[in-house]
Amino acid sequence: MARKTQILVIGHNDNGCTPEHEKTAYDTGAAIARSGAVLISGGLGGVMRASCRGAREAGGLTVGIIPQDAHSEANEFCDVVLPSGMGLTRDFLNALAADGIIIIGGGSGTLSEVCAAYMYRRPMVAVRGTGGVADRYGGTFVDYRENIMIGQADSPDEAVRSILEAIT
Amino acid sequence: MARKTQILVIGHNDNGCTPEHEKTAYDTGAAIARSGAVLISGGLGGVMRASCRGAREAGGLTVGIIPQDAHSEANEFCDVVLPSGMGLTRDFLNALAADGIIIIGGGSGTLSEVCAAYMYRRPMVAVRGTGGVADRYGGTFVDYRENIMIGQADSPDEAVRSILEAIT
Amino acid sequence: MARKTQILVIGHNDNGCTPEHEKTAYDTGAAIARSGAVLISGGLGGVMRASCRGAREAGGLTVGIIPQDAHSEANEFCDVVLPSGMGLTRDFLNALAADGIIIIGGGSGTLSEVCAAYMYRRPMVAVRGTGGVADRYGGTFVDYRENIMIGQADSPDEAVRSILEAIT
Amino acid sequence: MARKTQILVIGHNDNGCTPEHEKTAYDTGAAIARSGAVLISGGLGGVMRASCRGAREAGGLTVGIIPQDAHSEANEFCDVVLPSGMGLTRDFLNALAADGIIIIGGGSGTLSEVCAAYMYRRPMVAVRGTGGVADRYGGTFVDYRENIMIGQADSPDEAVRSILEAIT
Repeated sequence: MARKTQILVIGHNDNGCTPEHEKTAYDTGAAIARSGAVLISGGLGGVMRASCRGAREAGGLTVGIIPQDAHSEANEFCDVVLPSGMGLTRDFLNALAADGIIIIGGGSGTLSEVCAAYMYRRPMVAVRGTGGVADRYGGTFVDYRENIMIGQADSPDEAVRSILEAIT
Repeated sequence: MARKTQILVIGHNDNGCTPEHEKTAYDTGAAIARSGAVLISGGLGGVMRASCRGAREAGGLTVGIIPQDAHSEANEFCDVVLPSGMGLTRDFLNALAADGIIIIGGGSGTLSEVCAAYMYRRPMVAVRGTGGVADRYGGTFVDYRENIMIGQADSPDEAVRSILEAIT
Repeated sequence: MARKTQILVIGHNDNGCTPEHEKTAYDTGAAIARSGAVLISGGLGGVMRASCRGAREAGGLTVGIIPQDAHSEANEFCDVVLPSGMGLTRDFLNALAADGIIIIGGGSGTLSEVCAAYMYRRPMVAVRGTGGVADRYGGTFVDYRENIMIGQADSPDEAVRSILEAIT
Repeated sequence: MARKTQILVIGHNDNGCTPEHEKTAYDTGAAIARSGAVLISGGLGGVMRASCRGAREAGGLTVGIIPQDAHSEANEFCDVVLPSGMGLTRDFLNALAADGIIIIGGGSGTLSEVCAAYMYRRPMVAVRGTGGVADRYGGTFVDYRENIMIGQADSPDEAVRSILEAIT
């Protein structure tokens, strides 16, 4: 039996996360679960929490990789918690854990994950209209090396279909 | 719904792993799965692979945290793979991921995980008679601080019962 | 006696580094050394190597924090080499090591260092006209949080003066 | 000009460090400085602080790699401070930074550094009679692989001579 595909969802933490971001994140988590993939996230608030909730409520498996060293710091919708004890450096662990990544808005933490993913050549898809990193880097390359283009999708369902295609 | 307990199994990699170690690791993985806990491991060979196989074949969930940056380096019995890209420094991630730890034999890598677990106060139980770190440190403290005593057990089933008690 | 100020220089690796970038990096390293500060860098090629060379030849102290686990992978102008063994995740170590940062051009690796520096609030100054990350993010904030603005300078000397002011 | 040799000194933190340990650490730091090598340490208290002080007062260069993310957490005798932001996982960075290592007493943190050094084959010498890890592992191998034997020395001067020989 092969391992399931692992999809990382990244975006705004509590700070900056609107109800629209949360809804998009929730629906993305749910679509990941329905596809049979595992949801990976940074395990904290905002887009991370909403995507975990969506995946959990759709019957999926959720993994949270957090900066702190105690499991209890993760949001309550993580089935497996990895307390990295490494602070924000854990952004690289998130990116490395992913077979593919979906971006919903996002600020500096999201951007560091995008950079890590780009350098390690993990496919990425941004949800259009969610602002921040998603709209700034969706449809582009992170740099002149043109390693891997960040795709774009108009909805959570399309983002999941698109990232699953990019992975295979 | 609460998150499941996460039990890390550590011990010999391919190098130094006897058929007896493998059987003990397999049985420990299976007992972890039967208890409803998640198996965490270093995701490579020897005790890591055998414990994943035991847990997988008993219907459990297995997570492997590996030194490399590619998922494909993990053994085939990991359901979730975390490629840390950090080399052997990932030993600290293994320890931090654990609610509790079971030790089967083991050399220098196992000992670094034991040190990390001791410093971050994760409970540990060693399986008696498996040699290496398990027999050297089972029933003792790692240092004069006497943070947390490493328990001992005579069988995989007893080790799992004992670590579950220590966690709660 | 107080510790010396530590200035990180970031930018293009061999790939993408022009003679102009190298000259700017060399002059920046030399200006750092003349100011009495320590040069921190990622210890490899391109802007990293040229800035180390400039600082070394101006009598300064140079530190290289590299992805690999062997000292010998660093460029020959590093006085102190820290082999992180963590792969590209060492970008966060570079940013954390800095009291302040000077940006010369740069792609995805540089951008991940900028994100780390922004999250940990290390002051940054970009050298104008060097392209890449320096021109894209110079004079702006990395995100809506407006943690810390990335300054701009027209020359290596101005960049060093400006970052020293920002640090104190 | 070749880079200077980097010697890591490890042992008790404040907790457990006696005046004798401090004197041995101070003298070891001073002997490292006189040899022309750079002192690397974990940058905090006890053996770390005393060895930095010894090296500083003998005119040497001192580097501290600390768990925290702020430079100000290091002891006042570090010339270069690397705030890793990685918590105790930085023990691996200490070991990797070393061309060779001197062990003075020590508990679980010291032992994790010894394990990392052993796996990455950095030579080690323990100062006899300082207790803890130094006396437990001096003159032995960490495990059955017999990667690299931990040497023993009767004084700081002998430890420095011996580690310099082991490095070349």
